[in-house]
Amino acid sequence: MPNPKTTARILGILLIFEGFFMWLSIPVALIYKEDDVLQFFISGAITSLAGFLAYFLTKRVHLEVTKRDGYVIVTSGWLIFSFFGTLPFILTGSIPNFTDAFFETISGFTTTGASILNNIEDLSHGILFWRSLTQWLGGMGIIVLSLLVLPVLGIGGMQLFAAEVPGPTPDKLHPRVKQTAKRLWGIYLIFTGAEILLLWIGEMGLFDAVCHSFTTMATGGYSTKQASIAHWDSPYIHYVITGFMFLAGTNFTLSYFGFHLKFRKVWKNEEFRYYLGFVLGFSLIIALGLYLTTGEGVEKSFRNSIFQVVSIITTTGYITADYLKWTPALIILIFTLMFFGGSAGSTGGGPKIMRIVVMLKNSTQELKRLIHPNAVIPVRLNKHAVDTEVVTNILAFIAFYAVIAIVSVFVMSLFGLDFETAIGSVVTSLGNIGPGIGDVGPTSNFAEISDGGKWYLSALMLVGRLELFTVLILFSPAFWRK
Amino acid sequence: MPNPKTTARILGILLIFEGFFMWLSIPVALIYKEDDVLQFFISGAITSLAGFLAYFLTKRVHLEVTKRDGYVIVTSGWLIFSFFGTLPFILTGSIPNFTDAFFETISGFTTTGASILNNIEDLSHGILFWRSLTQWLGGMGIIVLSLLVLPVLGIGGMQLFAAEVPGPTPDKLHPRVKQTAKRLWGIYLIFTGAEILLLWIGEMGLFDAVCHSFTTMATGGYSTKQASIAHWDSPYIHYVITGFMFLAGTNFTLSYFGFHLKFRKVWKNEEFRYYLGFVLGFSLIIALGLYLTTGEGVEKSFRNSIFQVVSIITTTGYITADYLKWTPALIILIFTLMFFGGSAGSTGGGPKIMRIVVMLKNSTQELKRLIHPNAVIPVRLNKHAVDTEVVTNILAFIAFYAVIAIVSVFVMSLFGLDFETAIGSVVTSLGNIGPGIGDVGPTSNFAEISDGGKWYLSALMLVGRLELFTVLILFSPAFWRK
Repeated sequence: MPNPKTTARILGILLIFEGFFMWLSIPVALIYKEDDVLQFFISGAITSLAGFLAYFLTKRVHLEVTKRDGYVIVTSGWLIFSFFGTLPFILTGSIPNFTDAFFETISGFTTTGASILNNIEDLSHGILFWRSLTQWLGGMGIIVLSLLVLPVLGIGGMQLFAAEVPGPTPDKLHPRVKQTAKRLWGIYLIFTGAEILLLWIGEMGLFDAVCHSFTTMATGGYSTKQASIAHWDSPYIHYVITGFMFLAGTNFTLSYFGFHLKFRKVWKNEEFRYYLGFVLGFSLIIALGLYLTTGEGVEKSFRNSIFQVVSIITTTGYITADYLKWTPALIILIFTLMFFGGSAGSTGGGPKIMRIVVMLKNSTQELKRLIHPNAVIPVRLNKHAVDTEVVTNILAFIAFYAVIAIVSVFVMSLFGLDFETAIGSVVTSLGNIGPGIGDVGPTSNFAEISDGGKWYLSALMLVGRLELFTVLILFSPAFWRK
Repeated sequence: MPNPKTTARILGILLIFEGFFMWLSIPVALIYKEDDVLQFFISGAITSLAGFLAYFLTKRVHLEVTKRDGYVIVTSGWLIFSFFGTLPFILTGSIPNFTDAFFETISGFTTTGASILNNIEDLSHGILFWRSLTQWLGGMGIIVLSLLVLPVLGIGGMQLFAAEVPGPTPDKLHPRVKQTAKRLWGIYLIFTGAEILLLWIGEMGLFDAVCHSFTTMATGGYSTKQASIAHWDSPYIHYVITGFMFLAGTNFTLSYFGFHLKFRKVWKNEEFRYYLGFVLGFSLIIALGLYLTTGEGVEKSFRNSIFQVVSIITTTGYITADYLKWTPALIILIFTLMFFGGSAGSTGGGPKIMRIVVMLKNSTQELKRLIHPNAVIPVRLNKHAVDTEVVTNILAFIAFYAVIAIVSVFVMSLFGLDFETAIGSVVTSLGNIGPGIGDVGPTSNFAEISDGGKWYLSALMLVGRLELFTVLILFSPAFWRK
């Protein structure tokens, strides 16, 4: 059985941090002479105070984190962050309704980017800053989760990557995690800084550059503009953001190697090559399709194609063109990309390139196994045979993903959504993307969905973001035994 | 490398039979005094002659059928049957266009039931008889294929059932197959006869009773009426057909046990219990939904529900109510059923209950494996642990199924279909169902689809009917080597 005190203590520490991060909106509000300084102060104070309380009440606990504690901490951590994260929205009156505020906040911390806001440009700078910051913090959490925590827990094939990271021993969450986490966060910071600089050099204002860099690196997709990136009619900005979305969807361990000029190691990574291949392949096909079916020129067709492709495959969700207005074949390609997701160890959501590749390889290997029934034909990744257990685990993940999606489409239709909107809302929430199809397409939002539907989609975002098993395991009676 | 002479010889024998079966339409035409007797005679003569030719040209071949020959024979057999099967349609002028005739015929032999006909009731009795017969013959083929051939080839988990059937040795297709085939066909014949009798006792005429019994037992779904079973407003007929559709979707080995009063053996079969559970579960939920959302009474709601549920889950495709007019949540349930399919060893298409169950079990077992990382936790079916290789094989099958479906939706959209129709046409063709969603729903047909689209869907029917691998393996270069 997991130890609730351990959980409380760690969540306490995290909440103290969250409170401090809320206070970062205070200088923003001061600079822009906005009148919600007090609200940010109170929000941060309540959050930090709650954190201190949890921390001190569990002071005598010897901090030994078991695997089971890990599951509880991760899931409840994202939940608690989202609950307290609503405070700035509610206290400033930006989103007075709690359901809406929670939806917006968990959509932030899960780096989804689905929004209920119709009036983004009416919001204060402080609120926009906090909204972007939820995604950036969510992204930091995901990097540590996917590269350091999940491999230890053995979830959905993430152990394939554990070996490459200098890190934890399989039994407990080792203190050395901290050191590795700092290195990976270093990359995250550098990328964020570089994007801010490059966007600022372009025509984007500093504030917008900061906010968008936060939500790019998190593959979150919250924008400070109602029209998302389409607000800027600048090829430079579109390409810069495309580039950084691509980086955010890349395994951060690979970026770490890249910074140390170990490019061969990057190129030897099979998932990366497939990721690049999928991006280029889909971009070229869609660019051709756009060129043939719209009046746009070659460059605009290519730009609109690659931006949307990278935005969807990395699960960022920025928009420069309304893909629902494209010809059906191209919509289907974009919709298909919603089931890919970023690389493992990136901030991207969805099933992940690595799992899709293992699934496809296992299927084609099965044909070879039929032809040579007595030969042992394993799935190979990075030239190593993948354990059958890991393959089964990955296929179980994908099956869960599909089953959850199908059941959820039914549930959302009970909340009154039509067929396409039900599918769109589920796929985009579970995959942490942002825009979907139907009435939750790239130019619309989630405001019209009923309260029940919003809570259900919030749960889907959490389940998707935490790689399904982390949340589902909590519903297993065996988990709470002994 | 497979031996083309072996294939030619066996196909020759089969074609001779097909020719004789075409002649069965002659007495039908004579009884109804229709003027297409000569056309049926010529069709049968051409087909049998082609068969004799192939048979005698390969007279000196020693008939040793290897596994590789098996793949070639099965796939080319279904193709050749469909090519020659177009003759009655074309020569009588019922379907003058070859593409349309081929679509209608392969839809028959694959027991799909998707039709391009707008004027079913204008056709002669002889043609309607042949059309129904293609499905009945297809069903006979499928019983032997799924229970005797595929387990030997090791395709997609079908080996789980091989043990239960007194039958072939793993290496070659053993002569004892014949004896088992005859027993299973005996059941098929008895069920068909019983249904004819029961429908005839009801208000259905003998001719319609025969045709519908043919297409029920094959889970084919071709009707002699444009409105399908909705033509008869008789609860008795609806329930009788529901019952026989259910039997047609049951493993025929279990029916064999049932005939020998070994009911415990039937009940001990896990796939059967899940099949029954899914049918009842979905029927009750949809019946409740229909009762609440339509003005219909309890009995009518239940009947419309269970008829459509059994028709879709068994991939028969008969219709007594237009499910696309139901409320979205209920449409989604029906759509979900399109991914189930009948039991393994039945005439039903789709992924099959057994595979869905193994997939779901593997996913839930994975949660247990995460909680107890050092325990060996296999997937169990019928209280026996399923080999990991078989589980991987089944998951590979489902992955292939999904990938083929997704790629095909894109392809069909290139033929000008909208999103929903593209999905509907693909799912119903690959699953050998008949009606889909969108413009190929239960009250419409496939006439409006372009020629290219019809050929593509024809290929999908074949691939789906032959459990994917049987066809896909032919595209593997390794298959043709040595």
